Amino acid sequence: MSVHPRLSINQATIKHTTVAEALRVTADAGIGAIGLWREQVQDAGLAESARMLADWGLRYSTHCRGGWFTAVEGPDRRAAIDDNRRAIEETATLAAAGAPGSRAVLVLVVGGLPDGSRDLPGARQRVRDAVAELAPDAQAAGVTLALEPLHPMYASDRSVLSTLDQALDIAADFDPAVVGVTVDTFHLWWDPDVLAKIERAGREGRIATYQVCDWKTPLEADNLLSRHYPGDGMIDFGPMTRAVEAAGYTGDIEVELLNQAIWDTPPAEAVRRTIDGFARAVAPHLG
Amino acid sequence: MSVHPRLSINQATIKHTTVAEALRVTADAGIGAIGLWREQVQDAGLAESARMLADWGLRYSTHCRGGWFTAVEGPDRRAAIDDNRRAIEETATLAAAGAPGSRAVLVLVVGGLPDGSRDLPGARQRVRDAVAELAPDAQAAGVTLALEPLHPMYASDRSVLSTLDQALDIAADFDPAVVGVTVDTFHLWWDPDVLAKIERAGREGRIATYQVCDWKTPLEADNLLSRHYPGDGMIDFGPMTRAVEAAGYTGDIEVELLNQAIWDTPPAEAVRRTIDGFARAVAPHLG
Repeated sequence: MSVHPRLSINQATIKHTTVAEALRVTADAGIGAIGLWREQVQDAGLAESARMLADWGLRYSTHCRGGWFTAVEGPDRRAAIDDNRRAIEETATLAAAGAPGSRAVLVLVVGGLPDGSRDLPGARQRVRDAVAELAPDAQAAGVTLALEPLHPMYASDRSVLSTLDQALDIAADFDPAVVGVTVDTFHLWWDPDVLAKIERAGREGRIATYQVCDWKTPLEADNLLSRHYPGDGMIDFGPMTRAVEAAGYTGDIEVELLNQAIWDTPPAEAVRRTIDGFARAVAPHLG
Repeated sequence: MSVHPRLSINQATIKHTTVAEALRVTADAGIGAIGLWREQVQDAGLAESARMLADWGLRYSTHCRGGWFTAVEGPDRRAAIDDNRRAIEETATLAAAGAPGSRAVLVLVVGGLPDGSRDLPGARQRVRDAVAELAPDAQAAGVTLALEPLHPMYASDRSVLSTLDQALDIAADFDPAVVGVTVDTFHLWWDPDVLAKIERAGREGRIATYQVCDWKTPLEADNLLSRHYPGDGMIDFGPMTRAVEAAGYTGDIEVELLNQAIWDTPPAEAVRRTIDGFARAVAPHLG
């Protein structure tokens, strides 16, 4: 199975790898791009991670992930904002070290309701406020903040943003180079208006990254880990992929799979299966 | 804790009851209304169920449930349509036997993707077709079909309708007395536009029933069973309840809880806790 030139491995797919290992299995498989996770980058050291990325000659597709800033004002919120500032710097450093075509995109999972809170509108407003606070830092660093709407089943514990329109409505106050959105099939496939929303995202210049991942029921007992290789589940990747293409997105396409069985697979094998799934389910819909 | 006059027990909350037991614990608790499930009604016999309902003097709030008609044309689809015709007759019979204020409302859970299918638009079209086929029967029987959008986490296996607007768009082709919608907090609470959609449902005369149920994370391993007593989770019942009131809905309000721990509770105790939860979390928002 040939490797599609726009395929990128998100390190979550090969979670139990160091940065060095993730870069090696990705490059060894003939894949041209990668998105790393902050924890592993911090374990390896940012400068060393950037050096290794440059040595392998891979493009950097996204940095995962910032966000988690729905807390009310106070020390926890300040810590979250500061941590996002560090994530912005990491993103800029890694994107600069990546091969030509690298993108300085920081994916933002915004967070759920604070403990004991039922105030969904308030949490959403605090997301907007956090983006406003971080936008100047992102702009200065040349980084795009990519708001990611997550599946509504995560609305209380992971993301009070559930739809692409919510993310676009927040992004609308900012330069598209500074605030964009993440389009992830797993989170959005059920939305009856998803194609129109992708079209809007393109028209407004907001698609910062496109991630492909399949949905299959029954879900895993831990629903966070229910993400599958493209083609293994119920998602028809054609319409969304063509819509993202038509919307003008030409960047790398990440596969980010949180799934215990995949994590239990040797990383090189998980990467090989990702290549196959992408070739079967996604690539035929790319121009 | 006093019993709110509009509270209705949906039999799913006390799943392991016969119709006789469900009617008794509901009436004994001083609750004025009930919604029964088809399986139990068929076990007891329709005529006998209707007689017992009349004897206890309870209002009938909904009949649960019809739907499951996303199959492609063929014997399975024909069987599903026929089964829904029986459900319509059951609904009419039970509502006629209930106390004044009873409503002939058949809740419809439409079904997910057929096995092996990824054609979500096709399944949604078949829902529309099934409603068109059943509407004359419902009209003749004086029954309202109440399309229920389910949480998007059930889009593949239980309901290809995920939003109130989807249900309203289908209903729009029919008389509001014949096709309406079910507003259930558990399924809709995450929707950033839920209040506007409830307002639309009211304006179009479509709110056939309002069900209250709480959402709490982490979800149960079987996410179908993650429904909680009002007040025990993360939902703010105020805005949605006030919106349903403002939309003109004056009927009974059901509590339908699919939850193994609640099913393991003696039915009378589960009913008592439902009364308490309703009084604390929902009743303060009713006029």
